[in-house]
Amino acid sequence: MPYTPSTYLPYDFANRRHIGPSPEEMVEMLEVLGLSTLEELIDQTVPASIRQAEQLDFGAPKSERELLWFMRQIAKKNTPFTTLIGQGFHGTVTPPAIQRNILENPAWYTAYTPYQPEISQGRLEALLNFQTMVSDLTGLEVANASLLDEATACAEAMTMAQRVAKSRAGAIFVDHHCHPQNIAVIRTRAQPLGIEVIVGDPFADLDAGRVFAGIFQYPGTYGHLHDFSDPIAALHDAGALGIVVADPMALVVLKEPGAMGADIAVGSTQRFGVPMGFGGPHAAYMACRDLYKRAMPGRIVGVSVDSRGNKAYRLSLQTREQHIRREKATSNVCTAQALLAVLASFYAVFHGPKGLRAIAQRIHRKAVRTARGLEEAGFKVEPAEFFDTFTVDVGAMQGVIYNAALAERINLRKIGTTRLGISLDETTRPASIEGLWRAFGITRTDEGGDGQYRFPEGLVRQSDFLTHPVFHMNRAETEMMRYMRRLADRDLALDRAMIPLGSCTMKLNAAVEMMPITWPEFANIHPLAPADQVEGYREMLADLADKLCQITGYDAMSMQPNSGAQGEYAGLLTIRAYHEARGQRHRDICLIPTSAHGTNPASAHMAGMKVVAVKSAENGDIDLADFRAKAEKAGENLAACMITYPSTHGVFEETVREVCEITHQHGGQVYLDGANLNALVGLVKPGEIGADVSHLNLHKTFAIPHGGGGPGMGPIGVKAHLAPFLPGDPSQGESGAVSGSMHGSGSILPISYAYVLLMGGAGLTQATKVAILNANYIAKRLEGAYEILFTGKNGRIAHECILDTRDFVDSAGVTVDDIAKRLIDCGFHAPTMSWPVAGTLMIEPTESETKAELDRFITAMLGIRDEIRAIEEGRIEKANNPLKKAPHTVEDLVAEWDRPYSREQGCFPPGAFRVDKYWPPVGRVDNAYGDRHLVCTCPPIEELAEAAQ
Amino acid sequence: MPYTPSTYLPYDFANRRHIGPSPEEMVEMLEVLGLSTLEELIDQTVPASIRQAEQLDFGAPKSERELLWFMRQIAKKNTPFTTLIGQGFHGTVTPPAIQRNILENPAWYTAYTPYQPEISQGRLEALLNFQTMVSDLTGLEVANASLLDEATACAEAMTMAQRVAKSRAGAIFVDHHCHPQNIAVIRTRAQPLGIEVIVGDPFADLDAGRVFAGIFQYPGTYGHLHDFSDPIAALHDAGALGIVVADPMALVVLKEPGAMGADIAVGSTQRFGVPMGFGGPHAAYMACRDLYKRAMPGRIVGVSVDSRGNKAYRLSLQTREQHIRREKATSNVCTAQALLAVLASFYAVFHGPKGLRAIAQRIHRKAVRTARGLEEAGFKVEPAEFFDTFTVDVGAMQGVIYNAALAERINLRKIGTTRLGISLDETTRPASIEGLWRAFGITRTDEGGDGQYRFPEGLVRQSDFLTHPVFHMNRAETEMMRYMRRLADRDLALDRAMIPLGSCTMKLNAAVEMMPITWPEFANIHPLAPADQVEGYREMLADLADKLCQITGYDAMSMQPNSGAQGEYAGLLTIRAYHEARGQRHRDICLIPTSAHGTNPASAHMAGMKVVAVKSAENGDIDLADFRAKAEKAGENLAACMITYPSTHGVFEETVREVCEITHQHGGQVYLDGANLNALVGLVKPGEIGADVSHLNLHKTFAIPHGGGGPGMGPIGVKAHLAPFLPGDPSQGESGAVSGSMHGSGSILPISYAYVLLMGGAGLTQATKVAILNANYIAKRLEGAYEILFTGKNGRIAHECILDTRDFVDSAGVTVDDIAKRLIDCGFHAPTMSWPVAGTLMIEPTESETKAELDRFITAMLGIRDEIRAIEEGRIEKANNPLKKAPHTVEDLVAEWDRPYSREQGCFPPGAFRVDKYWPPVGRVDNAYGDRHLVCTCPPIEELAEAAQ
Repeated sequence: MPYTPSTYLPYDFANRRHIGPSPEEMVEMLEVLGLSTLEELIDQTVPASIRQAEQLDFGAPKSERELLWFMRQIAKKNTPFTTLIGQGFHGTVTPPAIQRNILENPAWYTAYTPYQPEISQGRLEALLNFQTMVSDLTGLEVANASLLDEATACAEAMTMAQRVAKSRAGAIFVDHHCHPQNIAVIRTRAQPLGIEVIVGDPFADLDAGRVFAGIFQYPGTYGHLHDFSDPIAALHDAGALGIVVADPMALVVLKEPGAMGADIAVGSTQRFGVPMGFGGPHAAYMACRDLYKRAMPGRIVGVSVDSRGNKAYRLSLQTREQHIRREKATSNVCTAQALLAVLASFYAVFHGPKGLRAIAQRIHRKAVRTARGLEEAGFKVEPAEFFDTFTVDVGAMQGVIYNAALAERINLRKIGTTRLGISLDETTRPASIEGLWRAFGITRTDEGGDGQYRFPEGLVRQSDFLTHPVFHMNRAETEMMRYMRRLADRDLALDRAMIPLGSCTMKLNAAVEMMPITWPEFANIHPLAPADQVEGYREMLADLADKLCQITGYDAMSMQPNSGAQGEYAGLLTIRAYHEARGQRHRDICLIPTSAHGTNPASAHMAGMKVVAVKSAENGDIDLADFRAKAEKAGENLAACMITYPSTHGVFEETVREVCEITHQHGGQVYLDGANLNALVGLVKPGEIGADVSHLNLHKTFAIPHGGGGPGMGPIGVKAHLAPFLPGDPSQGESGAVSGSMHGSGSILPISYAYVLLMGGAGLTQATKVAILNANYIAKRLEGAYEILFTGKNGRIAHECILDTRDFVDSAGVTVDDIAKRLIDCGFHAPTMSWPVAGTLMIEPTESETKAELDRFITAMLGIRDEIRAIEEGRIEKANNPLKKAPHTVEDLVAEWDRPYSREQGCFPPGAFRVDKYWPPVGRVDNAYGDRHLVCTCPPIEELAEAAQ
Repeated sequence: MPYTPSTYLPYDFANRRHIGPSPEEMVEMLEVLGLSTLEELIDQTVPASIRQAEQLDFGAPKSERELLWFMRQIAKKNTPFTTLIGQGFHGTVTPPAIQRNILENPAWYTAYTPYQPEISQGRLEALLNFQTMVSDLTGLEVANASLLDEATACAEAMTMAQRVAKSRAGAIFVDHHCHPQNIAVIRTRAQPLGIEVIVGDPFADLDAGRVFAGIFQYPGTYGHLHDFSDPIAALHDAGALGIVVADPMALVVLKEPGAMGADIAVGSTQRFGVPMGFGGPHAAYMACRDLYKRAMPGRIVGVSVDSRGNKAYRLSLQTREQHIRREKATSNVCTAQALLAVLASFYAVFHGPKGLRAIAQRIHRKAVRTARGLEEAGFKVEPAEFFDTFTVDVGAMQGVIYNAALAERINLRKIGTTRLGISLDETTRPASIEGLWRAFGITRTDEGGDGQYRFPEGLVRQSDFLTHPVFHMNRAETEMMRYMRRLADRDLALDRAMIPLGSCTMKLNAAVEMMPITWPEFANIHPLAPADQVEGYREMLADLADKLCQITGYDAMSMQPNSGAQGEYAGLLTIRAYHEARGQRHRDICLIPTSAHGTNPASAHMAGMKVVAVKSAENGDIDLADFRAKAEKAGENLAACMITYPSTHGVFEETVREVCEITHQHGGQVYLDGANLNALVGLVKPGEIGADVSHLNLHKTFAIPHGGGGPGMGPIGVKAHLAPFLPGDPSQGESGAVSGSMHGSGSILPISYAYVLLMGGAGLTQATKVAILNANYIAKRLEGAYEILFTGKNGRIAHECILDTRDFVDSAGVTVDDIAKRLIDCGFHAPTMSWPVAGTLMIEPTESETKAELDRFITAMLGIRDEIRAIEEGRIEKANNPLKKAPHTVEDLVAEWDRPYSREQGCFPPGAFRVDKYWPPVGRVDNAYGDRHLVCTCPPIEELAEAAQ
């Protein structure tokens, strides 16, 4: 019998798994658009002038199985040694139940930032637990829901202190015992802002009158423990602030910064169960005195009430620095490290104060035993009192002992040319302590057991912490598992429904892409591990950078920026350094269209540039005449322009090449914001159309999950001439460092790498096309019901579209917020609200959504339009209708029903699932109440009980 | 400062993670019981006469981190080679999204068997998909929701055929090309039932008049493909049945058994995405003609309607062979392989018919290419036409080529002394084909690509399959992930609430225990891999067996039985073989108390024994006088007694030693059913109190999750004198084999091994004590409200208790079913209903539940009692009250409310969560309707639409 070959490719990841619409569905969708091929749509949408000539080609894409095999080969080239390096990164034990039920659970990792509180109560509670933990451990009243890493948190603390300090001094004092990467990032951040950085000994060199703040590391990078009360008092006397960078594990047993009078505390919660992961991602924390809470960067979870007066969590004080002050902002923090903060908070919930104390004591005991073994053999340990870290001056033997330790599979820290640093942690085993001793030529058995504290007199913690019941709940895994499940169930994430957030690109985060990151060979690696132990990481970094360069048309890539905003900032610093190197330090003007994201001007200001705003034309495009005029006016002072492409209006502007040319004509550099790269991959290379630098949102375009508000990842690509000016290595104190680790959040790069390998060049290109198709399909189907605010010249949009809902305020009293809340009843996360234009909704479906889900969303939106029409036509009251009462809860169903529409209409609008409906745990959250009554730690239990009534 | 040692052990798995009540909670609970120590309770509960003398001691228990490290060392001693052995086990690709979202997701793996349909709609749908898939692939009308493995399914098909065949012949014909393990298990099963097994060539040796059925393997174990239509027609003419054992992957492209006239088809769905796992667990399937459906063993999912007439799934035809016929039963199948069937069904949903066809064609193509390479080098491949398997006669070169293949990291099958078997699969890569060729001395490149079919004329499949929409839904991972989530959310499993099922021991299945099983080194191992490739498995098996022997007081252990009922059967066969070896074949009487589980008499009958029932005394205990009398009467014919300890009534009987002694006096052996071992571990060793053999339910006592109705695992422990008679190796055709793999479901043994290592001896003992405490606490708190049916001499119960609810039928018209359904409203799975006494509830909380959860359950039960009282006192109608209308659904809330109680009372009874309430997706399911209108494949979409209205 003749053979009939199968043309169906069952392992084609791009077309079978990642891209939502099936080939058949695409035909139907194109029909709606009046088209017969996808290529036609792309031709109508993406200007021919900018299309890339050749196809992306990375060879054959890998099947899921091939990928796992390949990643295992990469993983095997990383060797997780016992790591006693310290310097801000420590071994830790992730409780397996947390790993399985949170880190590996799409209900947690595919969630978006909790801007819509009604569908985010679970992770808001977990983040409130995080804040409570931080506040308790630091002894400061208010904590935020995490920052990017310890080093950037130091920099944020610096600029925050400058904003609030009475002192108008222009310098900051930095403890010489701060970790090198913290000093490096502080320096980077300070310089463009004109802040002088004075590094010295807090007990000898601090001249409080010269500075607006002092920042002290606790324990110091070499293990010293100091009570900073005196330097802080001196600072206070001078109207300056005291900032303590503290290891939260040390705070479990040591005097807290609040008790030293500190105004701000920052640090990393990495060692609370988050693997070192080659440097990130980890959640940094920031806490401050109540007085300063409104100046604190980042997100703060607060407690408010819902429409029935029940307790409800929400993000408080959402007005961020960059939104308020834009081009005067000294912070551009946008995202957080939500998923990692959640992990750290659960670590604390799992262990509770007793468990944490036991763990911290064990760590200390191990350090004491290790030191004693060295001392009894004649080595001098310094300092004499410590928590977990000390150093030994071994003179010329540094290399010998260092290598002997390597032979024992132990990594030490080299300090200068004569000292070695040793940092013990939760994971250090007796065998490793013995191996370390052997490296020092000592044969000795670690007997374990107790010993003396070696804490300085007066530095033992006296106060309670983690007193809230959540940290005292029964810690049986059964109970913990159910708690994690309950919180997960309160939230609506990508694992249940489309999240059509314009500009956020909530695409599939495939299971296979997530698998390698929890393998020990990626997770348990210190960022400063010797190069030959991280060959897998290096190979992956090189190949991923190479592929991202091919995609973007750039020549070099830095993985250091650990968020999109960080990427912007790093890119502009690179431009700044380039100009400076060419003797054109005067170039400091940055042209930014008014439609830009708030982070753009903030980043420019932070990079020491003056922002000149460029008008938008009627159709949302950059006003080319205005652009030209302002570039000319800037002349030889033009540093850069910042543009987003396709534009924040969701359109491929025809003039992008001209904008770049004008900028170059005047000696400026073009920063192309990569937020919308999902509409370009495989079709347009930014580096080919005139851009000099872009950041890539790996958490948008390259499949890293949003994690409920982080991790993000914003590497930058640059043309060759900028390559020498990319960020330096923070651990070596190199210039231009923007985050605490050379490769940023290295441990999540396998996700993007896997994505690229699975998709292949053709798959990535097809994904881009389908992202555009999906968006145009929605726009077309909603035509007539809603006005699409901006379109390109053929009436097409890019990968997202903006619906204008402003008229409904007048016609029906319906706000964009009402629509967003009503979408919850339909089982959807709202599109991006009021950005870039107030009163609008920006919809981005991404390529991963199927036609069925798009249709369900369209059904929901059309249903909502009908409901608005009913109000417009007076068929239902303006104040009492399904939109105003949305979202509807089970409590509404159980209670008396006094509404002019039925329970059925209220709860099951078009588009809602019947059996599988998502029920929000709270009704509409009262934002004003929450801001008036700011509570950002876990409320006392009586209050909970009250609220529950 | 002096050091204060921490007495808190943060990594103590037993007391911090596994055992529910905290030390403080235990004090409170003991107080309720009027006790001050746990030891007191145990002294009052467990007869001193049977307590074991020394404590269990396995050395220091491992922390979770130590365990993972240790298991990695074990895993490294397994070497997953490319495996071309075949013989019923094949490499397969588990789609990562299925692995993550089902196999590694507690919502799926901690679920119980779906006996309560209202809280099991998700897995019932998945299992219905499985049945539909099987029915379609085999071309037979009815399929069940899985059996234990292919070999036992063959045996089940045999006894089923005997039950239904018109022919009264006493023999079965078995295709000589059946896999050896299938023949072995058929022989084991046939012998005690007096069935003659005739093995031969179906086309030469079949004498249809002599047999009640013929069973044929398709493809044959050496790869032959035959159309069995003629032999089946001959069987039919003689009133006998035709059974085909078919590989479902082959059925994708080959003529289906139904089209050959087969009456029954069985086989393994392993290669549908379920790893080989050293032999199991995998879901076997069984399908049959509609005519025979009521004789089919195992569970069948069917479609019915709920209280509002909406479609609802449920288990149909629940009356199982062993319940109806007890001591005449020829099947004791109790559990299934639900989790594995769900995996296989999702594999089919993920790939759909097109994908499956492509995969099957690829496998075939690889086999054709491989064969051609051999043939062109002069080797003769046999058969000439095949699907994926063929053999090569290499004469004296067998060892040389076999070893050359090993050097290429390829495992082949040795057949006789001159042949090699080669089986290609989904995972075989071109490099392996080339390696295989090299082993044969051929240098050749595998070019891939297409080729000719090598199927026999007339055996190409002509019919459609998987035509139901569920197999044609969009297969993007986004959609699949949401489908898996939706189904998971419909169910109530251990990850949301206690499942207090008496006799089922639904304890914690800790995340860390589950982690190793998906590592490739455990998952991707063929059961017949050479010994030096499975040293890790061997080491684990030996150590686990050793520890289980210490726990039970036995001397040897067989891991072969892959369910509890299988264990019973295997244990009795061991006894039978022992008697036989001593020339006492006449011993064939088995004494079984009337209170025994239905599987006991069924197993005894299957082991060729005559069951003599022993009365129970008033208090539920064995009537010792009756036992003695019946033992005496049996005299030299006494083979065994079967007892359960503590008894199925949840009591530690004082007379257990006497029962054993009496049995031994008369030359019988004692089978102690291990169902309740959770009340014995560390306190009592069955092997020390007189028992000779027990099975251990690893899925009850030793933390293997129930998987929504399997996998189970029932190894047996025996005293030394029985050790020589343990089950033989099925793959070698050894006698006494009860399942298809020597070590049963080997790949889940790491779970129990991890559990034992984490708990340690003291932890296991403490768990037992707390299991008893938890049960007694519930019993005490419910005293007064409910009658506890049986207690021990101090008024204590063992690890479970029976509530008598029979009086409520008269007093209030409330049945045990009403209470069970009302518990769903409270967010609980019902306790075991009507077993061992009709009209009762048997509650077993296990040691893993916290006091808070026990209290919530008690609150719920007391609330229910109050509701019953309201009916009793005439305060609410008998026919219209919260109990009769339970469970309440969202549909009830949305609809008109015409009930004499409020929505609030209906939906939020005491004990129910408010925010986190579980809502059943359907109202009470109509069982009678479902049995009248038996539908056990996915209903057509129109019907769905209708039902949804």
